[in-house]
Amino acid sequence: MSEQHKIHTVVDIYGNTYKMVGTETSGHMRLVASIVDSKMREINALNPSLDQAKLAVLTASNAVHDYLKLKEQVE
Amino acid sequence: MSEQHKIHTVVDIYGNTYKMVGTETSGHMRLVASIVDSKMREINALNPSLDQAKLAVLTASNAVHDYLKLKEQVE
Repeated sequence: MSEQHKIHTVVDIYGNTYKMVGTETSGHMRLVASIVDSKMREINALNPSLDQAKLAVLTASNAVHDYLKLKEQVE
Repeated sequence: MSEQHKIHTVVDIYGNTYKMVGTETSGHMRLVASIVDSKMREINALNPSLDQAKLAVLTASNAVHDYLKLKEQVE
């Protein structure tokens, strides 16, 4: 895909700005960002001593877990 | 659920050790950890200048994106 067909979206997740580039709509990317942001805040509330890298790793683990559970349900 | 029914699993993700506690099997948690670890390594290869916190946030975003796409397919 040529650069001109890529969609650039700037999102804010947990106080940092990220430039997302891809084929998804800006609305989709903002939804993804808001879900990640919410999950990070939830996990931080339960584990306030975690640094941001570990918090984000646990957030990623949570999201992968949700994905695998949905996949199991589908199959 | 009482503490004795929770399953404790120690996993390694991107060089750090995490103690996971929950109702999932250790096998499930190790699969989740290996997927997160692989995604982090893939994203790092594409963006070697990212710090670990941002790398993990992008990994979480990638996993949430996959989840939403699968959910769309199911619906």
